[in-house]
Amino acid sequence: MAATSEVFRVGLLGHGTVGAAFDALLAERADAVAATTGLKPELTGVLTRSRGDFEQILGASDLVVELIGGIEPARDYVLRAMRAGKHVVSANKQLLSQHGEELWACAREHSVQLRFEGAVAGVVPVIRVLQESLAAAHVERIHGIVNGTTNYILSEMARSGISYAQALSQAQELGYAEADPTDDVTGRDAAAKMAILARLAFSTPVHLEQVVYEGIEHITADDMAYAEELGLGLKLIGTAERVDGGLSVRVHPAFLYGEHPLAAINGPFNAVTVESAAITEITMSGPGAGGPQTASAVLGDLVSAMIPPASGVGGDDIAQALTMVDDVVSAFYLHMEVADRPGVLAQVAEILGMQGASIKSFVQRGLGDNARLVMVLHPLQESRFYAAVRLIGQLDFMRAAPRAIRVIDEEFG
Amino acid sequence: MAATSEVFRVGLLGHGTVGAAFDALLAERADAVAATTGLKPELTGVLTRSRGDFEQILGASDLVVELIGGIEPARDYVLRAMRAGKHVVSANKQLLSQHGEELWACAREHSVQLRFEGAVAGVVPVIRVLQESLAAAHVERIHGIVNGTTNYILSEMARSGISYAQALSQAQELGYAEADPTDDVTGRDAAAKMAILARLAFSTPVHLEQVVYEGIEHITADDMAYAEELGLGLKLIGTAERVDGGLSVRVHPAFLYGEHPLAAINGPFNAVTVESAAITEITMSGPGAGGPQTASAVLGDLVSAMIPPASGVGGDDIAQALTMVDDVVSAFYLHMEVADRPGVLAQVAEILGMQGASIKSFVQRGLGDNARLVMVLHPLQESRFYAAVRLIGQLDFMRAAPRAIRVIDEEFG
Repeated sequence: MAATSEVFRVGLLGHGTVGAAFDALLAERADAVAATTGLKPELTGVLTRSRGDFEQILGASDLVVELIGGIEPARDYVLRAMRAGKHVVSANKQLLSQHGEELWACAREHSVQLRFEGAVAGVVPVIRVLQESLAAAHVERIHGIVNGTTNYILSEMARSGISYAQALSQAQELGYAEADPTDDVTGRDAAAKMAILARLAFSTPVHLEQVVYEGIEHITADDMAYAEELGLGLKLIGTAERVDGGLSVRVHPAFLYGEHPLAAINGPFNAVTVESAAITEITMSGPGAGGPQTASAVLGDLVSAMIPPASGVGGDDIAQALTMVDDVVSAFYLHMEVADRPGVLAQVAEILGMQGASIKSFVQRGLGDNARLVMVLHPLQESRFYAAVRLIGQLDFMRAAPRAIRVIDEEFG
Repeated sequence: MAATSEVFRVGLLGHGTVGAAFDALLAERADAVAATTGLKPELTGVLTRSRGDFEQILGASDLVVELIGGIEPARDYVLRAMRAGKHVVSANKQLLSQHGEELWACAREHSVQLRFEGAVAGVVPVIRVLQESLAAAHVERIHGIVNGTTNYILSEMARSGISYAQALSQAQELGYAEADPTDDVTGRDAAAKMAILARLAFSTPVHLEQVVYEGIEHITADDMAYAEELGLGLKLIGTAERVDGGLSVRVHPAFLYGEHPLAAINGPFNAVTVESAAITEITMSGPGAGGPQTASAVLGDLVSAMIPPASGVGGDDIAQALTMVDDVVSAFYLHMEVADRPGVLAQVAEILGMQGASIKSFVQRGLGDNARLVMVLHPLQESRFYAAVRLIGQLDFMRAAPRAIRVIDEEFG
């Protein structure tokens, strides 16, 4: 069958972990692709730092796969490929979250496809589902666990009671975290992915720098223990949602009630929940980006792009863009170390009450001369909550800075 | 924006629960669709038993949405629409699982699209993901909870210890089960959906009647209690998988270990896990088919079909079809009521041993003169297991017919 198929020429930029996995997967599946599409994909050139010439590869390709990562020269190559009328498949979250509008405009102008399933959540097909299945849906909210490294670390802390540092070093030994884990543990990697998802779901340009993010470095084994006591699980959650007619996009550690569809996602997995009145919710999950998983997403994009012509290139229509909102309503977990003396709880409660915060559940534990107060608050405006936290932090009986973590509630997500 | 869009004419066949929900959703989202596609979809005719004329609706439509259900006249209308060069969107699992090959052949012959996301798992986009994201993947196995009614019943039995009959009547009161629940509780509805999924994932024609299915009517509260003791959860699982170079498609109640991605799916939800070496696994979940959810899936198909031309109509290429396999390897739960006297366990164990069955875990409980033996067996060939069960059933100390339920294991899915 393959012998009679026409060849579809693919130029590959980058041959690192994902590039090499894609190269191998393409060779393995080329005949199956030919059986489905009538065209047999073939690598006609590979560009790495040490070999290959971009112009020559471009000239010999029907489609360019960009797996270099980072901004430059990836941005320059992707733009030049589209200007030359070539479709592009990329798995580059940095590039799309920082230069997406420029790239999508270029794709529209030159009537080529720019596909990027591999950029978010590895093999979990959230990009396609947002662009196609839900193209006509009124999405209300997306919650995502979009970084496998941090989900592995938090899962291990919860499972075996080890510290953040121990879990991180375990993740590094197993290859789930890089030697420099900064992008993952600070939430920046997840923020880039949420910027891309928010752009698609809400037709609103979102730059990485507009996403508020917070990492997991400050999470303690102690938080995990209280979480269990309160029936909560802790995840690094990305959220993109409509708020008062605007859009809020943020990433932060959050407690989830056990019934939340993301609460059961453990280990180096990714998962995304899309909520809309008509559909209630869809949850998709799978292993976070590894070489073979991302390569599989790239191959899916390649096959879609081969079926001419474009069935939607994404990133279009920002006619009804939303404004970005920073201050949202959330429930909170609040952890305080205080001197164990009369009146302490009353003062804390008074400050909370002044800001409209009310307590949903509460645990107090004596620690010699000190006590630890842990509470979960009903949802309130974040700005008011943090105003209360600042005031509480100034009370003379506080033995450490109060610590706060968001809680994603059943009735108030 | 809507005012300047060209109209895309949609004929609607059927105006029951899903048809009415689709009608309402289309009216609500038509402008959003116009913003995405440049075409505004408009209902140009509705056919019900009491109103509308098929030929007239067909002539006035660019695409026909079939939501009548059942085989005839749905089959006739769908064929006639495609022969007239119209795209068709259908949510009709009976039709597709029994006449799929005829319909797909007709779609190919007339170069029209036949889309059917709404036929399986409501709003969970498993059809699109199989046809597009995983078009080039080598799928090894699909496990699905594809019937919300039975999942609700089993969840309630597990949660509150009520009987099957109580849970069923509760499901009927809440509208999760129909007055005649036969199709759902016997597994036949799930079997139709698994036939469709297997066809897409394995490019092998699968007729509903080729799917072995078993329902949940015989599940007892007692099974649920043992399941909890053994760390298992009970679901009605559809499976389609490669076995010895062939294909096995079946539906039956099955115990899942707590870590299985489908173990956490409770209530009237659907979920599907797709496994492949390159991707490990993807799990998708969401509410089972309700009117608005199915309507949303139909709208997603409509939007995809509006972006001309076809980006894959599905059901093509059966050049590498697999043969159907009936006898597969599975782990089992075995529940026996026996007279409490010496030698009973030895005789049972001897019969199991002769068939190559070995015991993984075992619970025995005294009940006056009788005893209850409950065991989980390591995986073995089903035919050998049932041979052992038949022999055990003939032992004179058996107080009731032995009962068997499959177990889906971590290492052996």
